[in-house]
Amino acid sequence: MNIILIENQELNGDEVVLEDHRASHIVKILRSEEGDTLKFGVIEGMRGEAEIVSIKRKYPHRVVLRVTLQEPPRPRSKIDLVLALPRPIMLKRILSQVTALGIGHLYLINANRVEKSFWESTLLEQGEYRKHLVSGLEQSVDTRLPTISIHNRFKPFAEDVLPERVEYYSHSIVADPSGNRVLAEAILPPANRILLAVGPEGGWVEYELEKFEKAGFTICTIGERILKVDTAVIALHGYISACFAKL
Amino acid sequence: MNIILIENQELNGDEVVLEDHRASHIVKILRSEEGDTLKFGVIEGMRGEAEIVSIKRKYPHRVVLRVTLQEPPRPRSKIDLVLALPRPIMLKRILSQVTALGIGHLYLINANRVEKSFWESTLLEQGEYRKHLVSGLEQSVDTRLPTISIHNRFKPFAEDVLPERVEYYSHSIVADPSGNRVLAEAILPPANRILLAVGPEGGWVEYELEKFEKAGFTICTIGERILKVDTAVIALHGYISACFAKL
Repeated sequence: MNIILIENQELNGDEVVLEDHRASHIVKILRSEEGDTLKFGVIEGMRGEAEIVSIKRKYPHRVVLRVTLQEPPRPRSKIDLVLALPRPIMLKRILSQVTALGIGHLYLINANRVEKSFWESTLLEQGEYRKHLVSGLEQSVDTRLPTISIHNRFKPFAEDVLPERVEYYSHSIVADPSGNRVLAEAILPPANRILLAVGPEGGWVEYELEKFEKAGFTICTIGERILKVDTAVIALHGYISACFAKL
Repeated sequence: MNIILIENQELNGDEVVLEDHRASHIVKILRSEEGDTLKFGVIEGMRGEAEIVSIKRKYPHRVVLRVTLQEPPRPRSKIDLVLALPRPIMLKRILSQVTALGIGHLYLINANRVEKSFWESTLLEQGEYRKHLVSGLEQSVDTRLPTISIHNRFKPFAEDVLPERVEYYSHSIVADPSGNRVLAEAILPPANRILLAVGPEGGWVEYELEKFEKAGFTICTIGERILKVDTAVIALHGYISACFAKL
């Protein structure tokens, strides 16, 4: 937790009272004292600092903060992600990792090689997945949540949603080891936003790749090595960030 | 497991007998049959194919393979990694992920913010860590293991090992959110090999950064966001791969 984050409704004037795991974190991990200043932010709002007005070290912990908010959230990431729904345990990790790295929107979609049972995960409920997004913000000192949409049928997503969405992006890329174009060579100016699609374990099937191409995507590769989905997503995020930095 | 890997001494002429988890994988996950061909490789050796000569489906599983090896290992990665020893559970994941992505050499080193207890992990014994490297090869269809050296004192590593090693690299980079140089701008031709140093949770201390600079490293950043070590290593690997591809 590199920043203390609160929901907007927790703010009372310029004061906040914490009595949950955040209070425990301040007492036990940070070992802060009255008068100390902490990095602080409001989810989907401003960032700044919080001064500790009072602190109760005995359990149950209680910390009162006086906050000053003057920094805007970090700029919205230029990367949006289409992700074939991974196994819940992997999805958890990906949600916080991509939030930490910064993405704008996440489309969680179905694909032929997505196991049916993954769709039954409670992680797909907003109350559940949001926790993992917030933990990514706490890691990366940000307040801007990615937005998420869930599409449990591939065909309507590929035929109705994608073709209209790709117009918002300078680049729409499917990453696949089978791609015959090197990703670094496909990211050319003008580059404003990129939509990156990453498949399930085992990859997209031919039909899916055709649908992506028809919707305006280019199939690109960063090499022949077959990667796990979580490794691939993060490596691709880094790869694309470098390509944008080099333009 | 995207390739069946064996140790060189398991090869008997052009035949191999598998009776362990690899046999179970072939029977239960791949559901292969006699006459099927599988991707196959010898650790630290050639890659190729294996034909299933016989298969015993009942437990204990037993698979006899006839192998043809004609492909060399993938080229050695241009990226070597200096990593402050992470928590064992995270190190496991990093070992297989960086092996899957491809690295040449891994220096596991001490740093001020490395917890002493991490050095007691059995994962630092070759017999233990090698398993995680092999699982990275099985994922990425490779046979070339990264080499690993372990340095449990920072000062001798920074003063005696590093200055002599950096001469082998076109780029020696410490990645740190505090860096005042953007990594993409620091990777200029000629680029042959890069040595990348990634710190512990909480980062390098000032003294350590000075030692790296004195040994010839440049302190670079890929952004202000604070990332977990495993996220940072993978994102940086992708980032550097793109920079090399763009040269």
